[in-house]
Amino acid sequence: MKFTCEKLQLQDAIASCIHAVSSKSTITALEGLLISAGEQHVTLSAYNFKTAIIKHFDATVYTPGSFVLNARIFYDIVRKLPDDIIEITIEDNFTTTIKSGVSEYNIIATSADEFPELPSCSKRNGISIKNNVMKSLIDQTVFAVSDNETKPIHTGCLFEVKENLITVVAVDGYRLALRKEEIENESGNDFKFVVPGDTLKDILRILPENEETSAIYPDKKHALFEIDNTVVITRLLEGEFLDYNRAIPQSSAVNLTIDVRNIKESIERVSLIISERLKNPIRCIFFDSSVKISCITALGKAYDEAPISFCPEQIEIGFNNKYIMDALKACTDETVSLGLTDGVSPAVIRPTEGDKYVYMVLPVRLKQA
Amino acid sequence: MKFTCEKLQLQDAIASCIHAVSSKSTITALEGLLISAGEQHVTLSAYNFKTAIIKHFDATVYTPGSFVLNARIFYDIVRKLPDDIIEITIEDNFTTTIKSGVSEYNIIATSADEFPELPSCSKRNGISIKNNVMKSLIDQTVFAVSDNETKPIHTGCLFEVKENLITVVAVDGYRLALRKEEIENESGNDFKFVVPGDTLKDILRILPENEETSAIYPDKKHALFEIDNTVVITRLLEGEFLDYNRAIPQSSAVNLTIDVRNIKESIERVSLIISERLKNPIRCIFFDSSVKISCITALGKAYDEAPISFCPEQIEIGFNNKYIMDALKACTDETVSLGLTDGVSPAVIRPTEGDKYVYMVLPVRLKQA
Repeated sequence: MKFTCEKLQLQDAIASCIHAVSSKSTITALEGLLISAGEQHVTLSAYNFKTAIIKHFDATVYTPGSFVLNARIFYDIVRKLPDDIIEITIEDNFTTTIKSGVSEYNIIATSADEFPELPSCSKRNGISIKNNVMKSLIDQTVFAVSDNETKPIHTGCLFEVKENLITVVAVDGYRLALRKEEIENESGNDFKFVVPGDTLKDILRILPENEETSAIYPDKKHALFEIDNTVVITRLLEGEFLDYNRAIPQSSAVNLTIDVRNIKESIERVSLIISERLKNPIRCIFFDSSVKISCITALGKAYDEAPISFCPEQIEIGFNNKYIMDALKACTDETVSLGLTDGVSPAVIRPTEGDKYVYMVLPVRLKQA
Repeated sequence: MKFTCEKLQLQDAIASCIHAVSSKSTITALEGLLISAGEQHVTLSAYNFKTAIIKHFDATVYTPGSFVLNARIFYDIVRKLPDDIIEITIEDNFTTTIKSGVSEYNIIATSADEFPELPSCSKRNGISIKNNVMKSLIDQTVFAVSDNETKPIHTGCLFEVKENLITVVAVDGYRLALRKEEIENESGNDFKFVVPGDTLKDILRILPENEETSAIYPDKKHALFEIDNTVVITRLLEGEFLDYNRAIPQSSAVNLTIDVRNIKESIERVSLIISERLKNPIRCIFFDSSVKISCITALGKAYDEAPISFCPEQIEIGFNNKYIMDALKACTDETVSLGLTDGVSPAVIRPTEGDKYVYMVLPVRLKQA
């Protein structure tokens, strides 16, 4: 196998694929990238048995072929080379030469036969989404995915497509995140599939923040994401996802308007004395025109306040500070609506206009003050 | 004790002192900062039995007093508070209240009696150095300090003052770094003292990059650095420092002019295949108008070249890549002079003009290629 290509194109391709490379594996080939030189382009593939990432780039191919190179060392070498043309030669005895200008590396490749077979996924019934919309759909839900493997279906995000509306939902037993957007659904079909949270985090790293359109092709066991000239194939999670429509309260006793930044800063300050290990809850007392936020831990006491729209009755409610912060951080508006009923009912954050997102956080029982 | 002060002044003072706070200690007070409120200012002190850092700042003191607060939690709280006036009250029962606007923290202080006595150091016989000069004197030598405790004297930098010339030297058995500068020596005396490398790294973090003047007051067992309104007192190391004048070869067989950036990039690329653990040396062959740099490790081979001024005879020499890189990184000039004699004699880097620095690196024996 022999080809030449531009350093930046190769570097970019490795950077996209490397997220799906196993960092430590007993199978050497899994720590590697499959390099396949075809007619006029080269394909890099990475696969960790959960996610496959495949990327094509332009190259001048002198001798086609397929080999596996250790991803880490390959990436390190390419990054350090000057922004110039790189020549890669891999002999049948696996001797590999990477050359650019006066620089030359000789390393050893692995046989492509040792690389696992990539999952196949049909490219029918696709839906098109703009990259920045896909980014926000994932980014604003994936944080709420469960890390508890006892209910595997909730370690992923539900993608639900009904006509031209996509709803992405994540839930972990203590909170729920939901995002909705209008999309182009060329297939005319409705779908429902659950993508592992880990894959979605990989996709976030690849997704450019632009108005270009990417596509998702859900299949039976896998889904294929086509983003620019990168293909991500992920296995889908199986099981019964929470009936989120029934889980979200349709109304609350009070609906307050809150300033997201103010309340985030107050919670952050109070959270300072909370240890990662003990997870003391924060106590919030909503009344009149402010929320009084406090916390008591082994370190001491912290107290803060933030303004709210008028709250006619006093509502005292405890939260896990991380969960309420994650929800507030996902809000893209300066002010949002916070629905509260009492100290044992979930808090529900919605936009003041429209219904693009819903963040629900369950309360934590407070000890008597 | 009760005082109010500006948040930024307090934050800045804690930031300076925190480097001398023990991060884990069986003595609670050592993880703390001593806060002493006097007439019109407050003093923060940190001391880890090696280095003491003392900083004054303006405050409105209502009740003087001295207490110890945990440095980490104190710093975290102050940083998160808004840029406003902070009020700190510590009661005799150690109840501490930190207030700013609507935010309030209640934590527990420790008695000042538990804080170790700060070392004393006379402020006579000082030398004055501009901050940016002191920074370069330390920054460009401290990297070569030994981390081998069997020869404690070499775990510090030698400061040698002769009339109006200061020479700072570090040596670790494999390399040597030397920097010289003209200074103002008001005392008229000559001195020699060795400051621990760890303290110098703390001083680097505090030293502003400006033309203001700081002072060093060496005493018998300690030295006092006065930088802006921060005082650093360090213990001095005892023992016989290497006679560096005898260690540095006065001349070499060839003196090449090298481009620092070019040769650094070549060494960096070749170093990619060197593992931290095995420390294979790089092989350099200087001849004619280039240096050919190569390395063979378990991962493979790397080869690179960089231009040099004419080298009439072939000199093959092995280096620990880190040591030669550290020396090149410390060079502030684009081109420097590299003195070489043969494969077993030290390489000596000097400026092409003047004698402000000398970096010497001992060669590593190479296996036959």
